[in-house]
Amino acid sequence: MSSSLINRTDIDFLLFDVFETERLTHLEHFCDHSKETFSATIDLAHNLGVDYFEPHASLVDENEPQMLNQEVKIADEVHQALGQYYAAGFGAATQSYELGGMQLPFSISVACKALLSAANIATYAYSSLSHANANVIKNFANDKLKNLYLPKLLDGTYMGTMALTEPQAGSSLADIQSSAVKQVDGNYLLSGNKIFISAGDHDLSENIVHLVLARIKGAPEGIKGLSLFIVPKFLVNDDGTLGERNDVNLAGLIHKMGYRGTTSTMLSFGEKTGAKAFLIGEPQKGLQYMFQMMNEARIGVGIGAVSLGYTAYLKAVNYARDRAQGRDAKHRVPDGPQQSIIQHADVKRMLLKAKSFVEGGMCLSFYGAQLVDKKTWCTDAQAREKSALLLDILTPILKSWPSKYCLEANSIAIQVHGGYGYTREYPLERLYRDNRLNPIHEGTEGIQSLDLLGRKIMMNNGEAFNYLSSQVEQTIEHSLAIADTKQLGQALHDGWRCLKQTTHALIAVAKQESVEKTLSNSVLYLHSFGHTVVAWLWVKQALVANEKLKTASDTERDFYLGKKHAAQYFLNYELPKAAVDCHILDKNDQTCVDMDANWF
Amino acid sequence: MSSSLINRTDIDFLLFDVFETERLTHLEHFCDHSKETFSATIDLAHNLGVDYFEPHASLVDENEPQMLNQEVKIADEVHQALGQYYAAGFGAATQSYELGGMQLPFSISVACKALLSAANIATYAYSSLSHANANVIKNFANDKLKNLYLPKLLDGTYMGTMALTEPQAGSSLADIQSSAVKQVDGNYLLSGNKIFISAGDHDLSENIVHLVLARIKGAPEGIKGLSLFIVPKFLVNDDGTLGERNDVNLAGLIHKMGYRGTTSTMLSFGEKTGAKAFLIGEPQKGLQYMFQMMNEARIGVGIGAVSLGYTAYLKAVNYARDRAQGRDAKHRVPDGPQQSIIQHADVKRMLLKAKSFVEGGMCLSFYGAQLVDKKTWCTDAQAREKSALLLDILTPILKSWPSKYCLEANSIAIQVHGGYGYTREYPLERLYRDNRLNPIHEGTEGIQSLDLLGRKIMMNNGEAFNYLSSQVEQTIEHSLAIADTKQLGQALHDGWRCLKQTTHALIAVAKQESVEKTLSNSVLYLHSFGHTVVAWLWVKQALVANEKLKTASDTERDFYLGKKHAAQYFLNYELPKAAVDCHILDKNDQTCVDMDANWF
Repeated sequence: MSSSLINRTDIDFLLFDVFETERLTHLEHFCDHSKETFSATIDLAHNLGVDYFEPHASLVDENEPQMLNQEVKIADEVHQALGQYYAAGFGAATQSYELGGMQLPFSISVACKALLSAANIATYAYSSLSHANANVIKNFANDKLKNLYLPKLLDGTYMGTMALTEPQAGSSLADIQSSAVKQVDGNYLLSGNKIFISAGDHDLSENIVHLVLARIKGAPEGIKGLSLFIVPKFLVNDDGTLGERNDVNLAGLIHKMGYRGTTSTMLSFGEKTGAKAFLIGEPQKGLQYMFQMMNEARIGVGIGAVSLGYTAYLKAVNYARDRAQGRDAKHRVPDGPQQSIIQHADVKRMLLKAKSFVEGGMCLSFYGAQLVDKKTWCTDAQAREKSALLLDILTPILKSWPSKYCLEANSIAIQVHGGYGYTREYPLERLYRDNRLNPIHEGTEGIQSLDLLGRKIMMNNGEAFNYLSSQVEQTIEHSLAIADTKQLGQALHDGWRCLKQTTHALIAVAKQESVEKTLSNSVLYLHSFGHTVVAWLWVKQALVANEKLKTASDTERDFYLGKKHAAQYFLNYELPKAAVDCHILDKNDQTCVDMDANWF
Repeated sequence: MSSSLINRTDIDFLLFDVFETERLTHLEHFCDHSKETFSATIDLAHNLGVDYFEPHASLVDENEPQMLNQEVKIADEVHQALGQYYAAGFGAATQSYELGGMQLPFSISVACKALLSAANIATYAYSSLSHANANVIKNFANDKLKNLYLPKLLDGTYMGTMALTEPQAGSSLADIQSSAVKQVDGNYLLSGNKIFISAGDHDLSENIVHLVLARIKGAPEGIKGLSLFIVPKFLVNDDGTLGERNDVNLAGLIHKMGYRGTTSTMLSFGEKTGAKAFLIGEPQKGLQYMFQMMNEARIGVGIGAVSLGYTAYLKAVNYARDRAQGRDAKHRVPDGPQQSIIQHADVKRMLLKAKSFVEGGMCLSFYGAQLVDKKTWCTDAQAREKSALLLDILTPILKSWPSKYCLEANSIAIQVHGGYGYTREYPLERLYRDNRLNPIHEGTEGIQSLDLLGRKIMMNNGEAFNYLSSQVEQTIEHSLAIADTKQLGQALHDGWRCLKQTTHALIAVAKQESVEKTLSNSVLYLHSFGHTVVAWLWVKQALVANEKLKTASDTERDFYLGKKHAAQYFLNYELPKAAVDCHILDKNDQTCVDMDANWF
C-alpha cells in the first residue's frame, strides 16, 4: 500500500508507538474499538484518497468552480468523491452511536484527514467545514434545530459553512455589522454581507446550512454583542422536507491563488425580505460558541498544512532518488555515470529539513488530537483537566507551526525538483499554492501569538506553561539517561531552559511594566515556543525509535535510523533558531513597536 | 511621480548618496553623462513601466502565450510595451556610441531594470534575455557574425535566447548531449533537444537568435568539450535580409507557476536536416564564454527578485495605511474607531522585516552593479582589479540573497493583506508566484554556495575575503566613531568577527582534512555570508542617513529615520541568525552528509 500521500509507517509509528493511541480503547467511549478497527479506518481513508480524491486534484485546480445563474456548479468528480466519503460513514466517524456515528477517536479521524487532504485538500474541505458546522449545532443548538439539521449534515445530505468574516471585519470580528431582528414567531430576519465564505454555494448537497455571526438589533457593540444563527439556503419544514428558498444570495466568487477547488464566495443575506435565521443557544454568546470549537478547527488547519507539506516531501524524495545529475565529488570523471541527486549533500540537507518539518508537524498534530480525545473522554477528572491545560497552551502552535514550516517543506520540494518543480506539469507548485492559505485563515500568526503569550501563558500565573515544562523535563531526564539519546537530551535541556527563562521574564514584564511591552514581539515568542515544543516531540520520537531499533528488521532499521537522524537534524540545525528569538525577547527589544508609520 | 513600483527616493539615495554613482562621470567612458542624464533615464524607465508595462501584467499572467501552428503568439500589449522600450533606446542603453548606444553605466541600467521588472517582469524578460545574448555575441563572436546580428539585437529587430538546459542536463551542464558536425563551408549542423528555453518562440521580432551549447563531434566529454553556437530561427543572408527557416522546431510549451507571460519552450534542433549553426569564438570554449557573462546575469536575477519583492512591499505599506482593523490595545473601547493596521506592532514588524529585505537587496544589487562599472571602466588597473575581486566573491549572493529574502518579502506582503492577499483580485499572489522562480534558475543556492565556498573563498588563500574584510572593517571603524551609529557598529563588528572566524576555520578544514568536509554545509555558509554582507550594507546606509539627517527637511527626515530604523531591525533581528549558521559550521556538523538515502 505504498503511495506518496503520507508515509503509513510513520502514521502507525506516531499513533501506536509514540502516542499509544490503542490505549484509548480502555476508555468506555472507545471500548468497541481496537488497533485493528483504527487501522482499518485509516486504510479506508487511504484508499478513498488514492481512488477518488487524488485523481481530480489537478482538474479542480485548473477548472475552478464557476458561477452560473447565481449558483455554483461543482465538477462531477467532486460529487463522486464526497459521495464515497459519506457512504463510507466518514461524515459521522467521530460521532456517537446514537447519531449514527462510529465513536472513533478524534486522533484517528485526524490521521484520515491527513491522508485525504494530502490527496486533495480542496475537495476534502467541503466535508471538513460540514463537520465543524455539525459540531456547533450538536453542542449548542436546541433539540428542534438539532433534529432538523444534524442527521443530514452528518450523512452529507446537507452541507455547512462558517459565515463570520465581513469585508470590514476580518481578524476584528468585533466590527461585524450583520444584524438580526426578532420576529413574532421567535425567529429572526437577518441581513448583512459576508466574504471569503468557503463552500458558500455549490450543488453538492440538497441544502447549505450557513452558521452566521450577527448582532441582534439593540445588542451592545463589540464581540460580546454577537449571536450565532443557522441560516439555511433552503428553509426546512417541520417534517424535514425542503421549503422555499431563503433570502441568501451569491454575490460573487473570489478567485484564489490556491485551494481553487473549494469555492470561496461573497454572500449577501436578506437583500430582499430578510433571511430567515434561527438562533443557536442564547443571544450574545455567538463568539463564545465559536471559540469552543476553535481547538479542533485549529488542529484541522494544522494537519491540513502538514498533509500538503508531507505529500510534497514524499514526492521530492522519490524524485531525488530517480533524478540523476552530477557526479560524486570524490570520483569525478566526465564520462562516469551520473549520481542520483539524493546523494548530493545539499539535497540531503533540504530533504532532511523537510522531513523534520513534516514529520515533526504530524507528530505535533497527533499529540494535539490525542489531547482532545483525553480531555473529552478520560474518566479521571484530573486527566481531563491536565489534557485541557496542555491543549489550551498548544492550540496556537497546533495551528501556526505547521502552517509556517510545512509550507516551507512545499517550497523545498519545489527546489528539489528544480525547474520541473516550477511547472504545472508536476503537482508541487499546486501544493505550495494550496498551503499558502494556511498561515492566513483561522487566525494569523499575529493572532495566534497574542492568544499564546497574552492569554495562555499568562493564565493562572503560568499554570499551563509550568505543567508543559514538567512533561518536557520528564523527556529530558529520560533521554539523558540513555547513551544513544544523551546528546539530544542535552540540546533539549539547553533549549527548554532558554525558553523557560524567557517565558518567566516576559511574565515579569507584564506584571511590572505592561502587557503591551510583553506582547511587542509576541510572534517571536510564538516561533521560539513552537520550535522548542517540536524539538521536544522529536526527542520523544527518537527515544521510541531508539528502543524499537533493538528488535528491528532491516527495513524497519532504515525507518528508525531516519527518525533518529531527523531528530538530530532538528535539534542541531533548527532548535538554535529559537534561542535567537529568545535573546531578542530577553532584551525586550522595542525596534518594531518604535517604528513610526511615516518612516515606511 | 509617486507609484508603487519602487521608491524613487530610495533609488536616488542608494545611487547618489550611498554609492555616489555620479562620480562615474569622471571616467572617460561616461564623461558625457551627469546626475541629470542618469535621472532622466530612470524617469523614462519609470514612465514606461507605469504607462506600458504594468497595465498588462495581470493580463499576460491570466492568458499565457499559446502555441498555434507550431508558433507562439504574444499579446498585443507586449508588442507595444517592448516597441516603446526599444524606441526609447533601452535596447542599447549601456552600449558604446559606435554601436548606437548611450554609454550609460550598468548601475543606471540596473535601476531601470528594477522599475520595469517591478512593473511587469514577464514582459521585461524578453528584452533582458536579448541583452545578455547580444553581449555574448559582442564579446566573443567574429566580426561577420557581429555585423549580421548585433545591431538588430540591440534595436529589437531580432531577439535572443540562451539555450543551455536539456532534459537530462540542468545544473549538470557537463551532460549536454546536443551535438554539432562541421560542414565543408566551415559552419555546423546542430541537433539536440533543449528545455526551459525562455522566449524560445514568439512573434515579437523578425528573427530569434538562439545561443546554443553543444558538443562538436569528437570533442571530449564533460564541460570542457562544449562549444557555443548561434542558431537563428531564420537564416540571415550576407546582405542582412532574412533567408529560409532554419531547422529549429517548437516541441512544446512549459506551463509555469508564475512568470507566465514569458513563454517557456522545449526546442528541438535539427530534427529534419540539422540546424545550421555558427560557432562563436573558438571550439570548446562555450562554457567559458557563458561564465564570463555570468556576473551580470546573476546580478540581473538578483535585481529581478528585488523588484518583485519591493513593489509588493510598497503595496503592503499602502494597504496597511488604508486598512482599518482592531483598536489600540491601550484604549480599547468596542465602539471606538478602528485603527489602521499599520499601527499594530506585528504589522510593523512584518513591514520592517520586508523593508530590511527589499531595500537591503536593492542596496546589494546596486553595489554589485557599480563593481561591474568599475572593473570595466576604471582607468586605474588596481581599482579595476579590486572591483573584480569584490564582484567575484559577491556574485553568488548577488543572485541568491535577493532570491531568498525578497521572495520572503512577497510572502509578507500577502500576509499583511490577509485573505485579500491570497486572491487573484490583488497582484500580491502573482508577484509571489513570479518570484518563486528566482531561487531556481541561474544556479540554485546549492550551486551558488559551492561557487562561493569552494571557489571564491578559497582562491588565492582567501584573497577576496580578506579584501572584503578590509572594506567592512572601515565601515565598522567609521560607525563606532559616531555616537548615533555606535550600536550598529558594535553589532556589525561582532557579526563580522564571527563570520571571519568561521571562514578561516573552513579554509583550514579544506587544507588539513578535505574540501568535501568544508563544503558539507555550504548553503549555511552562503546564508551567513549573505546576511552579514547585507548587515554591512545596512550600516553603510545608516551612516549616510545619519549624516543627511543633519540638514533634512521634515519629509526627508521620515525617510532617513526609516533607513536608520530598518538598519537597526536588520542588525538586531536578522544578523543574529548568521551566528547560528556559523556555529553549526564551526562544529563541522556532518548530520546532513551522514544521512543515508535509505533512511528517508
